[in-house]
Amino acid sequence: MKRITFLLIAVTTLAGAVAFMASTSRNAFAQEAAPIFVKEIPPGYRDWKVVSVAHEAGELNDIRAVLGNDIAIKAYREGKLEFPEGAIVGRIAWSYVASEENNKTFGREQSFVAGSPTAAYLQFMVKDSKKYAATGGWGYSSFDKDGKPTDEAAMKTCFPCHQKIKERDFVFTRYAP
Amino acid sequence: MKRITFLLIAVTTLAGAVAFMASTSRNAFAQEAAPIFVKEIPPGYRDWKVVSVAHEAGELNDIRAVLGNDIAIKAYREGKLEFPEGAIVGRIAWSYVASEENNKTFGREQSFVAGSPTAAYLQFMVKDSKKYAATGGWGYSSFDKDGKPTDEAAMKTCFPCHQKIKERDFVFTRYAP
Repeated sequence: MKRITFLLIAVTTLAGAVAFMASTSRNAFAQEAAPIFVKEIPPGYRDWKVVSVAHEAGELNDIRAVLGNDIAIKAYREGKLEFPEGAIVGRIAWSYVASEENNKTFGREQSFVAGSPTAAYLQFMVKDSKKYAATGGWGYSSFDKDGKPTDEAAMKTCFPCHQKIKERDFVFTRYAP
Repeated sequence: MKRITFLLIAVTTLAGAVAFMASTSRNAFAQEAAPIFVKEIPPGYRDWKVVSVAHEAGELNDIRAVLGNDIAIKAYREGKLEFPEGAIVGRIAWSYVASEENNKTFGREQSFVAGSPTAAYLQFMVKDSKKYAATGGWGYSSFDKDGKPTDEAAMKTCFPCHQKIKERDFVFTRYAP
């Protein structure tokens, strides 16, 4: 009887240990999968209103328009932080090129314009505090010119950088009047 | 009788000459007044869709968003020239400034953003082939940050420069995808 009891305890313990390990493994997987990247381009983004424009020099070497859906624009214009649920801030980045045709007309080297789409052509931050709780309430996405999501290794660099500006609700771009 | 006839002829001639001079003077005035500059900011322009973005270096030293009303955007997207009646192409120009806050976060000098409104903050081209026939069918306008129209001397430089690109229907900015 004692041996049966011992065996039962041993088996139960083992089962518990296996269950615990399985659970840990699931959590590890969940952690690895977070932040959950957004895989869909928000429809109609090209019609959104302008937040601002910028030129990122160096390796990026792009010129960009930052746009917002109506929820984001309203919050921007009211100067309200944090952004409400459903806000989406998007940016389109084109290669930064000197406009030969403009410069020829102006008679001087002056004009830099939007060229072809960059490698990370489209990027969006989608506010959903519950779904993206692990990344400050924002889900991140990035797409090339064909609408293909940027690889996850690159995507993992989004939040660590945006995290540095938590006081701006993780959003770099300020509204231009 | 001969003297009266002579006097009549003389008076008529003089009147004709005066009338001719007056007419010439009016034409001269009309020519001086043309191109007719647009003095009103189109309502709702800040909600318009993006045509493209650009950085003008040199004396201008701005970063700009070029926007279009629905008529202009439709024509741009269809790749149709000339622009139809009622098309308005606008541009907002902000001073081109290095973003210290962004660069601090990125750890490198990279980010150039929209600063305060420039001297010629808002500019619009309004298509009305009849009204603005003298300037290629486009009426030009320019406003400072307070909505005050730019002085006419400066406005007279619009058309001579845009005139050089008649084959693009006088519009510099191309649509960015």
